[in-house]
Amino acid sequence: MKLDFRPIEHLPEIRPGMNLAQCLLDRTRESEIEIHPQDIVAVTQKIISKAEGRIVQLCAVEASAQSIAIARRMKKDPRLVEVILSESRRIVRMRDEVLICETHHGFICANAGVDQSNVEGNDTVTLLPQDPDRSARELARILGCGVIVTDTFGRVWREGLVDTVIGIARVPPFIDFRGKHDSYGHQLQVTLLAAADSLAAAAGLVMGKTSRTPAVLIRGFPWDATESHAAMLLRTPEKDLFL
Amino acid sequence: MKLDFRPIEHLPEIRPGMNLAQCLLDRTRESEIEIHPQDIVAVTQKIISKAEGRIVQLCAVEASAQSIAIARRMKKDPRLVEVILSESRRIVRMRDEVLICETHHGFICANAGVDQSNVEGNDTVTLLPQDPDRSARELARILGCGVIVTDTFGRVWREGLVDTVIGIARVPPFIDFRGKHDSYGHQLQVTLLAAADSLAAAAGLVMGKTSRTPAVLIRGFPWDATESHAAMLLRTPEKDLFL
Repeated sequence: MKLDFRPIEHLPEIRPGMNLAQCLLDRTRESEIEIHPQDIVAVTQKIISKAEGRIVQLCAVEASAQSIAIARRMKKDPRLVEVILSESRRIVRMRDEVLICETHHGFICANAGVDQSNVEGNDTVTLLPQDPDRSARELARILGCGVIVTDTFGRVWREGLVDTVIGIARVPPFIDFRGKHDSYGHQLQVTLLAAADSLAAAAGLVMGKTSRTPAVLIRGFPWDATESHAAMLLRTPEKDLFL
Repeated sequence: MKLDFRPIEHLPEIRPGMNLAQCLLDRTRESEIEIHPQDIVAVTQKIISKAEGRIVQLCAVEASAQSIAIARRMKKDPRLVEVILSESRRIVRMRDEVLICETHHGFICANAGVDQSNVEGNDTVTLLPQDPDRSARELARILGCGVIVTDTFGRVWREGLVDTVIGIARVPPFIDFRGKHDSYGHQLQVTLLAAADSLAAAAGLVMGKTSRTPAVLIRGFPWDATESHAAMLLRTPEKDLFL
């Protein structure tokens, strides 16, 4: 297997209601990138959230007493805390200036995915897409390939952030080696590789954070189309051997 | 940035004392792959461990009373448990058939990295390299490029394994966006991307688990040579916001 990650660059500023799939198609055509059915397009949640209008103006937010109390403790804007809490199923940790939350989708990440970077205006934040799998399916239908929606998450035990799958369409989340044999005839026991997350991680490097590259074309990963959900990548606490 | 991951395939069976760097050089020449100084070669720990003789025959191991007790509880071979404990600084979790350990290097992983897959014989296990950074530096010197040593680890909160850096030479572990500005003029606050782990993850897909592809050539990632250590990727418990 040879893997290629190629940036889809210079998209226009994505605004609510814009047809993101069409923008991506236009940009790939202009850049003479042909999308094959076996390709996977990785798209950062940020532009999906923008296209879907998942944007909040903090000046329109009224902070609750709870948000004000947390905000004071964490030196955050109480309206930002209000938005984070409304995106959260529960607060996992609260420390220093970071709120680690479980989102309504089940993702565990800083600030429930509410983010101020790469948006216009100081008062504007983006929320995660409401249903990133649905967003991925819609893009996959129009682009005619596999799609993963990514966000940049922190990790337990290790420093630094990595891009991770929060939405997926067509592509299976895993490569399942269980029951297969290695080159020496041993049956592999527990080797379920999180393929989609691994692709997302490298795609995240190609996207960068300061350049306007919200999508990456991934070529070379072999996959059979299947019905995928990002929740398949979530481990229930009962099954989590690490916790 | 465009990223390419290309397999270095069909290496000979690596045995203790063999010159792994030379084997890799030979294989790239035979495959007409040229290694550039800006390339990064990802190498699975397995063949480094083999070349360095980090191999244990279980028949030569005597299990302690503690190992026998744990083995009984976990339905494991007591001699395997003995080897795992000798590779561990502490046991993090013990559940079902999996022992999560912190290795002497500080990595938290299943069975302290002791592994029975992709080795000859049913009685043979490999240990992680004693000093994977040193192994990486030695390979980097001879190959004339950046090197990451990878292993396949489980994760907290998410299903599936990903390849992760356990040794690194020349390449910086992170891309540091802190203090930089996004396209809208906002200063990015906390964006320290774990670049080396992200490259390792995708390289792990190219390596696979059942084919004999223990190394991957990564091209396109821009980096400036630096003194790196895999321990830079480890988060101390005090700093771990997620725990």
